[in-house]
Amino acid sequence: MTRFDITILGCGSAMPTTLHNPPSQLVELNEKLFMIDCGEGTQLQMRKYKARIGKLHSLFISHLHGDHIFGLPGLISTLSLLGRTTDLHIYAHKEIDFMLKPLLTYMGNHLSFMIHLHPLNPLKKELIYENNNIRISSFPLKHRINTNGFLFEEKEAPNHIIREMINYYNIPIKEIPAIKGGADFVTSDGTVIPNRILTHPAAPPRRYAYCSDTVYAPEIIPYIEGVDLLYHEATFAESELNRATETYHSTARQAAEIAAAAGAKKLVIGHFSSRYNELVTLLNEAKALFPEVELADEGKILSL
Amino acid sequence: MTRFDITILGCGSAMPTTLHNPPSQLVELNEKLFMIDCGEGTQLQMRKYKARIGKLHSLFISHLHGDHIFGLPGLISTLSLLGRTTDLHIYAHKEIDFMLKPLLTYMGNHLSFMIHLHPLNPLKKELIYENNNIRISSFPLKHRINTNGFLFEEKEAPNHIIREMINYYNIPIKEIPAIKGGADFVTSDGTVIPNRILTHPAAPPRRYAYCSDTVYAPEIIPYIEGVDLLYHEATFAESELNRATETYHSTARQAAEIAAAAGAKKLVIGHFSSRYNELVTLLNEAKALFPEVELADEGKILSL
Repeated sequence: MTRFDITILGCGSAMPTTLHNPPSQLVELNEKLFMIDCGEGTQLQMRKYKARIGKLHSLFISHLHGDHIFGLPGLISTLSLLGRTTDLHIYAHKEIDFMLKPLLTYMGNHLSFMIHLHPLNPLKKELIYENNNIRISSFPLKHRINTNGFLFEEKEAPNHIIREMINYYNIPIKEIPAIKGGADFVTSDGTVIPNRILTHPAAPPRRYAYCSDTVYAPEIIPYIEGVDLLYHEATFAESELNRATETYHSTARQAAEIAAAAGAKKLVIGHFSSRYNELVTLLNEAKALFPEVELADEGKILSL
Repeated sequence: MTRFDITILGCGSAMPTTLHNPPSQLVELNEKLFMIDCGEGTQLQMRKYKARIGKLHSLFISHLHGDHIFGLPGLISTLSLLGRTTDLHIYAHKEIDFMLKPLLTYMGNHLSFMIHLHPLNPLKKELIYENNNIRISSFPLKHRINTNGFLFEEKEAPNHIIREMINYYNIPIKEIPAIKGGADFVTSDGTVIPNRILTHPAAPPRRYAYCSDTVYAPEIIPYIEGVDLLYHEATFAESELNRATETYHSTARQAAEIAAAAGAKKLVIGHFSSRYNELVTLLNEAKALFPEVELADEGKILSL
């Protein structure tokens, strides 16, 4: 099975602390490196955790609050100093253009690669990237400004053929694609060999969903139903529920409620408020509702 | 004597490494905190080294290359989250307006304080800030784009009066300012008491100069003559002299030459290229010409 790893580069919130960096994570999938959000210092975190910056495929920006984007200019500048030539695709709300253009213009003459900005749809789920093996979608979250969550999915893989059966029944090569696709095989004497004897099913496709920043929003559940891993923001403890609601953030308990209702297999919480020096309260409040939960932390790798 | 401390927050160059952050330093002088340059991650470095962010008086940006400015949006955002109300003065090349305006506009409705941008003169030395005790000037350096060095100076303090002499000669209070200013005292019987008996001289004013980024430029010597401490960039070792000249940077040896010619009391070198994992070559090359030299390093405090 190919790697499907999420590396947390930062899981703090608006105000970075000595404990937590501003939001950013890397998704390694299909032998590509995707970045979600890019707070200040993200390129430094990549170096610290030895991420292979040369493999960076594209960037996904949930929304345009500073803590999610202030690392972009530095990252882009470094990619250029390293001599990147591959185009860089950035998926973000369309206003990123207005914010980054002057910086990009200023660096423009020296950039070694092209940047393509792809505006996200803040109102409905949309497929934003696809290849033979994976699919990346954005979907609306509910925050103070237009904000998107992201869903990284493997595509359903064809069944694996059982080599011994091919030999045993002497199946011609031209029949194999159909069998991988689910067809039975009919021998020369008319005997039907059911597909389940010839193949075993591929591993079920894995799915990862990123939901930050957002207020408690049950309307996102259909987008993330049954994911293997859900990253959901948990900026506050339950004692700060009012503050969470006012600022369009979630509590750890609310993150757990969403994970439970969506039937997620596992939950990781992050985007912690700078007021918390230790996070055991948040963890316990989530765990009470949804046992398969862990705290995000800088450098942590979650493998699917 | 009040504190006159320089704290190095970053002494790397264009590409940050795990060893060195992008350029930034704090000058604590006259009980105020001044920042020079603000590379990505500067606010994180301030936290790491427990700098008192609430005391930050104003910012001095040498030039508009990314490694010197990409920390500004995050720093400004954090100052606002912390509820700063005092105006923030930023001294920088006038184009900073064009680069930062969109980001500032975007954050503008939420900023808790006013920002004043003061354009630097890239062609000649200018006094840019002054109060009763100190003076800050900018002067031109020689880099690929308009770049300024900065000179932080205490003003000449009046002589200290010797309390015992005032009592002994029964000097009226109204005479004291003149005596502090250097006047002799004439007693009622006409005896002239020379000023040197009544006072002792104040400590000589201390001076710090910051020169980064710049190619070897002897024309800057008049601006920094006799400083107590000179920070001069030393991006390269002597073996990379050509590369230094091409990119308008200096070698460590050239930094030492400038320090020696300017009669600086001490030199600290920084803005190290990311190619150097250890800096002993740079240190030795500078030391051969100017023994009073040390390497900058993150977290190092240089007290004048």
